[in-house]
Amino acid sequence: MQLVDTIIEARWVLPIVPKGVILENQSVIVKGGNIAAILPTAEARTQYEADDVVSLPESLVMPGFVNLHSHAAMNLVRGLGADLPLMDWLTTKIWPAEGKLMSPSFVHDGAYMAGLEMAASGITTTSDHYFFPMDAARGLRDAGLRCATSAFVIGFPSAWAKDDAEYLKRAEAVLEACKGDEFVRATVAPHAPYTVNDEALKACAALSAKYDAPIHMHVHETAVEVSDSLRDHGVRPLERLERLGLVNERLIAVHAVHLNDEDIDRLARAGASTCHCPCSNLKLASGFSPVAKLLSRGVNVGIGTDGAASNDKLDMLGETRLAAMLAKAVAGDTTVATVFDMLEAATLGGARALHWDDRIGSLEPGKAADLIAVNLATIQSIPVQDPAAQLLYAAGRENITHTWVNGRLIAIRQEIVAYHDLNAVDRANSLAGKWQNRL
Amino acid sequence: MQLVDTIIEARWVLPIVPKGVILENQSVIVKGGNIAAILPTAEARTQYEADDVVSLPESLVMPGFVNLHSHAAMNLVRGLGADLPLMDWLTTKIWPAEGKLMSPSFVHDGAYMAGLEMAASGITTTSDHYFFPMDAARGLRDAGLRCATSAFVIGFPSAWAKDDAEYLKRAEAVLEACKGDEFVRATVAPHAPYTVNDEALKACAALSAKYDAPIHMHVHETAVEVSDSLRDHGVRPLERLERLGLVNERLIAVHAVHLNDEDIDRLARAGASTCHCPCSNLKLASGFSPVAKLLSRGVNVGIGTDGAASNDKLDMLGETRLAAMLAKAVAGDTTVATVFDMLEAATLGGARALHWDDRIGSLEPGKAADLIAVNLATIQSIPVQDPAAQLLYAAGRENITHTWVNGRLIAIRQEIVAYHDLNAVDRANSLAGKWQNRL
Repeated sequence: MQLVDTIIEARWVLPIVPKGVILENQSVIVKGGNIAAILPTAEARTQYEADDVVSLPESLVMPGFVNLHSHAAMNLVRGLGADLPLMDWLTTKIWPAEGKLMSPSFVHDGAYMAGLEMAASGITTTSDHYFFPMDAARGLRDAGLRCATSAFVIGFPSAWAKDDAEYLKRAEAVLEACKGDEFVRATVAPHAPYTVNDEALKACAALSAKYDAPIHMHVHETAVEVSDSLRDHGVRPLERLERLGLVNERLIAVHAVHLNDEDIDRLARAGASTCHCPCSNLKLASGFSPVAKLLSRGVNVGIGTDGAASNDKLDMLGETRLAAMLAKAVAGDTTVATVFDMLEAATLGGARALHWDDRIGSLEPGKAADLIAVNLATIQSIPVQDPAAQLLYAAGRENITHTWVNGRLIAIRQEIVAYHDLNAVDRANSLAGKWQNRL
Repeated sequence: MQLVDTIIEARWVLPIVPKGVILENQSVIVKGGNIAAILPTAEARTQYEADDVVSLPESLVMPGFVNLHSHAAMNLVRGLGADLPLMDWLTTKIWPAEGKLMSPSFVHDGAYMAGLEMAASGITTTSDHYFFPMDAARGLRDAGLRCATSAFVIGFPSAWAKDDAEYLKRAEAVLEACKGDEFVRATVAPHAPYTVNDEALKACAALSAKYDAPIHMHVHETAVEVSDSLRDHGVRPLERLERLGLVNERLIAVHAVHLNDEDIDRLARAGASTCHCPCSNLKLASGFSPVAKLLSRGVNVGIGTDGAASNDKLDMLGETRLAAMLAKAVAGDTTVATVFDMLEAATLGGARALHWDDRIGSLEPGKAADLIAVNLATIQSIPVQDPAAQLLYAAGRENITHTWVNGRLIAIRQEIVAYHDLNAVDRANSLAGKWQNRL
C-alpha cells in the first residue's frame, strides 16, 4: 500500500481531458499537491492509503474553474449604481468610489473577500486585472486561490502609478516578482486599446515577449470602442493592436464582443485567446460575443466573471451555463456550445490562455490537484440522467461542496434543506429513481 | 397585545407595492394565512405577540415568486438530450419518454418533486401547463405550493384525452373542480397556435369567457411558428388568435419571442400579458423576447421557468436576473428593465396575469401571507449597498432561507459554509463594513 495525502472517492469524475469522458466510481489520488493517479475506486483501495479519505458517493469531481478575467478588489464596490447608463455609472459611482478608497489595503481586502466567494464557488485560479496587483495577489492567496495577477498599465494617473513610465516600471517589477512562483503568475495587462497609447502598448508587447507572459486586455467590448478607433486611428482596435505587436499566441482578448469576420480571422491566425464574460456583457448592454463562430474557427475561448461591480457574482458555473445557452440563441442553433465545449472553456480554456495548462485546467496525473466536488443528489439536480448536463444546466454553485487548490481544501460546504415534511427529500429521491428506471 | 400566528422581524421588507420602496427594520404580521400588518419592529413589539417569532436581522423579506409558466411533471425527464436539435430532442427523447411514462402518478410525482424544488427556490405559486392537470395540482399542493393548473387542450391523442371533444370536456371539468378553491385555480390552456385547430381554439375562448379564466398558451415562441402560420393561415399567430377571440385581457402569451411592432400593439391594445421564459428561449435557441419594448408599451410581463426539461432549473430568482440583464443587452440600454421592474414582473406581474393579484404578488395587509426571506449576509452578497440590487444581481436561490405559503412555512434552509480558516467569513464581514463606511 502506498501512503498518499488525500484520496477522493467520487461517483463521477469529469477530467476534461480526454474530452467528453465521464468516469464512474473512480478515485483521485493526491500527493504533494499533485494528482498522483485517477483509477477505479475498487482498485485504489488495494493500492493507496491516506488519513484523509473523502467519500463522495453522490458527487461529481472535476477541475476547479479558471476565472479568466476578474477585478477581485471590486467586491467592495459591488451593488453601486444598478441600472445607470454606463458612463454615469462609471463617473458618478465607480470611479469616485475607487478614487476615495484606492490603496494597498483596499485592494488586499477586496481581493481577499472575492477570493472567499470564488473558493466557495469552485474557482481555483483567477486571472486578475487591477491596481496594486501584488496586494490583489496577496488577498487571493490569503483565501487559498492560485492566481495570475496583472502587470497593469493604464493611461491615467492613479494611486498606483503617476504616468506611463511609472506604470511600465511597476509592471516590470510585478513580472519580476512573480518569476518562478508556483501560485502567482503575472500577465502584462494594458487596460484597453482606448486607454493606452501606441508607445505604451509597444512597451507592453516587449514586456510580454521578454517574460513570455500573456497579454490580458479588454478588447472590442463595445460598439463605441470600435467606432472611436476607426475615427481616431483609421482601423479597428484589433488591427491597431496587431500593428503594435500585441496580437499573437499570448493575447487574451477580454470580452471580444464586437467582432466581424476579419477580426475573428485575425485572432484565429494569431493563435490568440478570447475571454467571454457573458453576465457583464449583458448587464452593461455591451452586446453578444460570437462564441460559436470563435469556437468553430478554433479560437481558444475562456470564460471570466469580470468584477463584482458589473456582474455582480463571481460564479463561474453560472457564467458557463449562461455562456452555453447564450451561444445557442446567438447562433440560432441548439447544437453549438455543447456541455463539454463550455465546461472545457471554463477550465482548460482559461488554463491554455494563461499558458498554465501544464499545471491546471484538467485532471491528469502530474498536474496540480486543483479540483472541486459537486453534489448532484439534491432536489434541484435529480434525477441524474446525464451527469455533465445536470452539472452545467441544473446544478448551481450551491451544489459545489469542496474546493481544493494544490491538494489543500480551501472551502467546504454543508447544506441542509429541511422541509415542513422532513421526509420530503428522501421521498423525492426514491420517486426519481422509480421513474428513471421505467424509462 | 394582540395574539397573531407569526411575526417576521426583517432587516428589509420589499413589498413590491408601492413600487421602488424598501422598508427597514419592519415586521410582517401574519394571522389566519393573511398579512395582518406591516409596521416598524419597534412598534410591532408593543402591539403583537405570537409563539412563532422569526427574527431575520440580516434578511430581506418579499412576496414569493409567481412562476407564470411551468410543466412541473417534467422534472422527471430533466437532463435528457442536451445539445440536440429541437426537433430531434422532442422526437427522440422527450416525446418517447412522456409516451412511456404518462399517467396520473407520473404527473403527480414529477409535480411534487418540482414543487419541492420551487419551494426551496422561493416560488409560492406556479402556473402549470400539462396533461393530468388535477394530478399536477395535487403534487404541487403536496409540496405546499399554491398553483394555477391547466384546462389543457392539444390536437393530439394522449393518455389524458383522445380527441378535441374529450380534451374540451376534461378542460371544463378542471375549470369546475377548481371553482372557489383558495389554493388551486385553473387556466384555459390550449397548447399553442400550431397544435390546436380553429374550432377547438374558439371553444377555448368560450370556456375562458364562461369561467372568467386566464388563457395560458405558448405564443410566438419560434420564427418557424410565425412563418408556418403565415403559410397555413395567411396571418401571424396573434392575428389569427385575435380573430378567434383569444386576444383579450385574459391572454397570457407565453414566450412572446418573435413579435413585430404590430404584434406588440395587438397585445397592448387588448390588455394581454406575456410570460417571459429567458432560459428556455436561450437554451432552445428560440431567440430574444423584446421585454423592454413590451414594458414601455405598458404590456404586463410575468416571468416563468418553463419545464425542467428545457431550462433545467426552476429558479425564478435566477430567471429574473437573466431577464433583467438580457433585456438591457437586447435594447442596448442599461437603464431599461430596472431592478424594481423585474422584481415586480416576477411577483405581481405573474399575479396580475393570473387575475390573482387580489390575493398574491405583493406584501399588503389583507393579502395572503405568501412570502420569502433572503439572507443577504453571505460572502456572495456583502457589502449591501443597495438591498434590492444585491438581491437580484448578487444573491442566488441559495440565499433564500424561508418560504411561506398562506402563512405556513413550506421550506427552510440552513447553510453552513466553513473555510479552512474558520474565521474567514467573520473577518470578511468586518472588512466589508470597514470599507463601506469609508465610501
